[in-house]
Amino acid sequence: MIKAIFLIQSPDSKGILSSVTGFFAQRDFNILHCQQHTDSYEKRFFMRIEVDASDMKMTRKTLEDDFALLAERLALDWSCHWSDYKMRVALLVSKTGHCLYDLIARQLEGELNAEIPLIISNHPDLEKAASQFRIPYYYFPMDEGKEKQEENVRSILRKFDIDLVVLARYMQILSPAFIDEWKGKIINIHHAFLPAFQGANPYLRAYERGVKMIGATAHYASEDLDQGPIIEQDVIRVNHELTPNGLKEVGKDCEKRVLAAAVKAHLEHRVIIYKNRTIVFSVER
Amino acid sequence: MIKAIFLIQSPDSKGILSSVTGFFAQRDFNILHCQQHTDSYEKRFFMRIEVDASDMKMTRKTLEDDFALLAERLALDWSCHWSDYKMRVALLVSKTGHCLYDLIARQLEGELNAEIPLIISNHPDLEKAASQFRIPYYYFPMDEGKEKQEENVRSILRKFDIDLVVLARYMQILSPAFIDEWKGKIINIHHAFLPAFQGANPYLRAYERGVKMIGATAHYASEDLDQGPIIEQDVIRVNHELTPNGLKEVGKDCEKRVLAAAVKAHLEHRVIIYKNRTIVFSVER
Amino acid sequence: MIKAIFLIQSPDSKGILSSVTGFFAQRDFNILHCQQHTDSYEKRFFMRIEVDASDMKMTRKTLEDDFALLAERLALDWSCHWSDYKMRVALLVSKTGHCLYDLIARQLEGELNAEIPLIISNHPDLEKAASQFRIPYYYFPMDEGKEKQEENVRSILRKFDIDLVVLARYMQILSPAFIDEWKGKIINIHHAFLPAFQGANPYLRAYERGVKMIGATAHYASEDLDQGPIIEQDVIRVNHELTPNGLKEVGKDCEKRVLAAAVKAHLEHRVIIYKNRTIVFSVER
Amino acid sequence: MIKAIFLIQSPDSKGILSSVTGFFAQRDFNILHCQQHTDSYEKRFFMRIEVDASDMKMTRKTLEDDFALLAERLALDWSCHWSDYKMRVALLVSKTGHCLYDLIARQLEGELNAEIPLIISNHPDLEKAASQFRIPYYYFPMDEGKEKQEENVRSILRKFDIDLVVLARYMQILSPAFIDEWKGKIINIHHAFLPAFQGANPYLRAYERGVKMIGATAHYASEDLDQGPIIEQDVIRVNHELTPNGLKEVGKDCEKRVLAAAVKAHLEHRVIIYKNRTIVFSVER
Repeated sequence: MIKAIFLIQSPDSKGILSSVTGFFAQRDFNILHCQQHTDSYEKRFFMRIEVDASDMKMTRKTLEDDFALLAERLALDWSCHWSDYKMRVALLVSKTGHCLYDLIARQLEGELNAEIPLIISNHPDLEKAASQFRIPYYYFPMDEGKEKQEENVRSILRKFDIDLVVLARYMQILSPAFIDEWKGKIINIHHAFLPAFQGANPYLRAYERGVKMIGATAHYASEDLDQGPIIEQDVIRVNHELTPNGLKEVGKDCEKRVLAAAVKAHLEHRVIIYKNRTIVFSVER
Repeated sequence: MIKAIFLIQSPDSKGILSSVTGFFAQRDFNILHCQQHTDSYEKRFFMRIEVDASDMKMTRKTLEDDFALLAERLALDWSCHWSDYKMRVALLVSKTGHCLYDLIARQLEGELNAEIPLIISNHPDLEKAASQFRIPYYYFPMDEGKEKQEENVRSILRKFDIDLVVLARYMQILSPAFIDEWKGKIINIHHAFLPAFQGANPYLRAYERGVKMIGATAHYASEDLDQGPIIEQDVIRVNHELTPNGLKEVGKDCEKRVLAAAVKAHLEHRVIIYKNRTIVFSVER
Repeated sequence: MIKAIFLIQSPDSKGILSSVTGFFAQRDFNILHCQQHTDSYEKRFFMRIEVDASDMKMTRKTLEDDFALLAERLALDWSCHWSDYKMRVALLVSKTGHCLYDLIARQLEGELNAEIPLIISNHPDLEKAASQFRIPYYYFPMDEGKEKQEENVRSILRKFDIDLVVLARYMQILSPAFIDEWKGKIINIHHAFLPAFQGANPYLRAYERGVKMIGATAHYASEDLDQGPIIEQDVIRVNHELTPNGLKEVGKDCEKRVLAAAVKAHLEHRVIIYKNRTIVFSVER
Repeated sequence: MIKAIFLIQSPDSKGILSSVTGFFAQRDFNILHCQQHTDSYEKRFFMRIEVDASDMKMTRKTLEDDFALLAERLALDWSCHWSDYKMRVALLVSKTGHCLYDLIARQLEGELNAEIPLIISNHPDLEKAASQFRIPYYYFPMDEGKEKQEENVRSILRKFDIDLVVLARYMQILSPAFIDEWKGKIINIHHAFLPAFQGANPYLRAYERGVKMIGATAHYASEDLDQGPIIEQDVIRVNHELTPNGLKEVGKDCEKRVLAAAVKAHLEHRVIIYKNRTIVFSVER
């Protein structure tokens, strides 16, 4: 089944839900899922609607153009996505491979509607992992200079026509220009429960602060380090028995689970960003 | 703000969502929340819609009558609830008071949109607790005979015009007639993660089976013991350090949390029953 | 059964465990529980040992004096506690009662080995709750001046011979002198997952940051606000459907659960403080 | 560092802890971790002790022989394990690869102190996965007859000198003879929260029962299907939005996490079996 997915947001006003569902009803589409949310604090309306587009009686362009007219009338911000398009995802890594293995395994098992055409790293360590899966591995060491290195990364991303950049434990801070070019298309995993322990060495700091749970946070990258819109978080209960290294070990499970959930939500067009927050519509399967 | 809440279910068909939202849009209601779900496995549609009824330009009866016409045309099962009505809840208990205290405290703190006009028990133990809160306590001992005792309970429930019966650790099996009279209006807390450990002594059996988590389940009472539709469940991680009594102690926290969540969902008209399952729409606050 | 509980810490060195257990074995005590932990990062040893003291063949003083000799030889920091002593706990509250009700109900149900001889507040709101349970309520308003008000609180605590001060949503910052007087004997509940959202209004800030889980933290009060040793933390999963007020509502469950667990751990002599961290030995029941 | 790990159990009696720790103190061993547990319900004592064996002044055999004398005197059941031995683990799979990928990735990342010398399956589907990691894949189809097929599996396990058999979603029931040969050395992952939903199709039955959480259980295989001693369990919260297939999808995460934790606990010699329960000592890292 081919599906069309519309993500919509707008200032709250009466009648949007009825108008949008009416739009699809008039055109005889079967609505598969419809989720909407009104943020009464921000006075803003959010919606995700998924319709069966298998036997459309019009072109995709016609549907989108028609919807654009409605959207203009109702002042909607919107985007439309087609389920038969596989997004192209680049994985950026440094030395640790747990998130890398996890994402690749999920892709191979059919859990992610995506292709992974390349892996990029500032270290050679995970080249072997990449070769096991026959995925091209681009190694750009930092010793060519941070600026030059980043330029190499960015140009290979462009060349491979990448839709989503996943920082799967890539231990480099991206430049504002990089982030700007890929706004809303870079997902990072931070190894702490943000906003606690922003920045470096979160597990050591968690140990010193004596927290009883550690966490991980997947978020869109923004210009301010570790401050972009959060997509997913989770925690693991810990206790005094774990040293900083122990926390790091047990934290890996949390990191890979959280990153995978965030990437999946993005690939399934379930995320809308507003200000510094995300609306993540739940999975219906 | 006065709200009208409609709970709707029907066989799945195109256009219901658009028709129902259109119904309210035409009458110029502001839709506060609208949640719907299509169960693709059962081919069934479920919906909860909450509208602002503060400045209605028609009577409640007119609105309900109008909706009845739409519902008939679309073959909807539905009910309508008004937020300014406080449901009358009877608490039935035996000897342990943790769920009782928890529910009363929540009611006093304004968490539950309900009145608690009476407590009923087959034991005298919790009379003191009831008197602390100045709630009438009806003690019907089992030695008057199970049948007679139950008749007393049922007649006092009728007399007090009760809307919801909460079995807050009431250790008696209700007769089919009792359950039938209050179908969909009796919530029980079972001290295990159903369907594991149905029936008596779940904590001892959990110990013997060596489970690593124990749980609690709140469900509507049905004729088959511990088999009614589940509203809420939760678990707590345990380990070998707990004896059967230890499990019982730590399980209490789970029981009261789960029961409170289920009662709240019912009072807020967020639950629809279909076959032996519930659709519990999430809280939006 | 009367139990003696020893809490011990010292720099790590060989043979402590063997010496301490030998001490009790030689005196023919039955060791009920023995838990120890070596922090390999800090090179420090921690231990909790619980022995059956029902039929002691010596006085309590003799046992403690004997142990003091061993402790001196091994350079142990230690304390000894007897299970037949009920600690006297003062509850300090402001306007919200969910933690208050929860702690009192647990005490009445026999979950807490403690007495609650008084409640203190800077507001009159919860006087009714206190009177329901026939617990004296001391209301010291802030308009008598912060210094004077605190002096009143401190003097009543002394007068009532209090062992543990629980800040059960008491919205006042304590002076360094107050904290110093009760060092390690004041437990506070902070309505956020520390170190995230220290200070005021954590739920609003959590909303604005768009976190996907909110939490609560129980910690010993220290001179630096919200930075004392953490005893217990927990989180609840939330999503975009909750406004700041909604977060506050659902956070209550987390707050009361976390505070109760921390108070219980303290009352059961399961907590050792070292630097800014706690070792909390698990419950064995 | 080379470590010796002793797992001990016995009827409870005074002085065991002191005797065992004294044994190692006298021989000047540094005790790295010592965990013990007395099950007051079963009157049984359990212990795990880990000592630094890097610079032993005796042979391993001497230490074990000495300990055997103590054990005989105190009536201890015990086993001794050396950390420099890598267990040889066989993975048995059918068609789904999520647990397989997860375990292999963890092994490659250094999380598991084990070798994985072979994968065995009754289907050809995962041969490609095996070849990616250059692990020999033995495909024994069921059409050679269940008895013959199992004999092939068993003989290859013997040939490869396997220490632990992991049923990583192997959808075949093992014969009593097979289980008996590998008693306490076969870990199975069941895709439900046992004892709920034993047997086939747990996700469909979970859907029909309308549970609000689904789980997974790792246990030692025993002659009674899905009834062996449980090592680890976990759950995931679900709701009405998931069909049976949806439950199956989201359950995968739980399955792989639970299986990995159980395998790890076994490999680290942290599990003692007594009757149908396990004592799983926690990780200290």
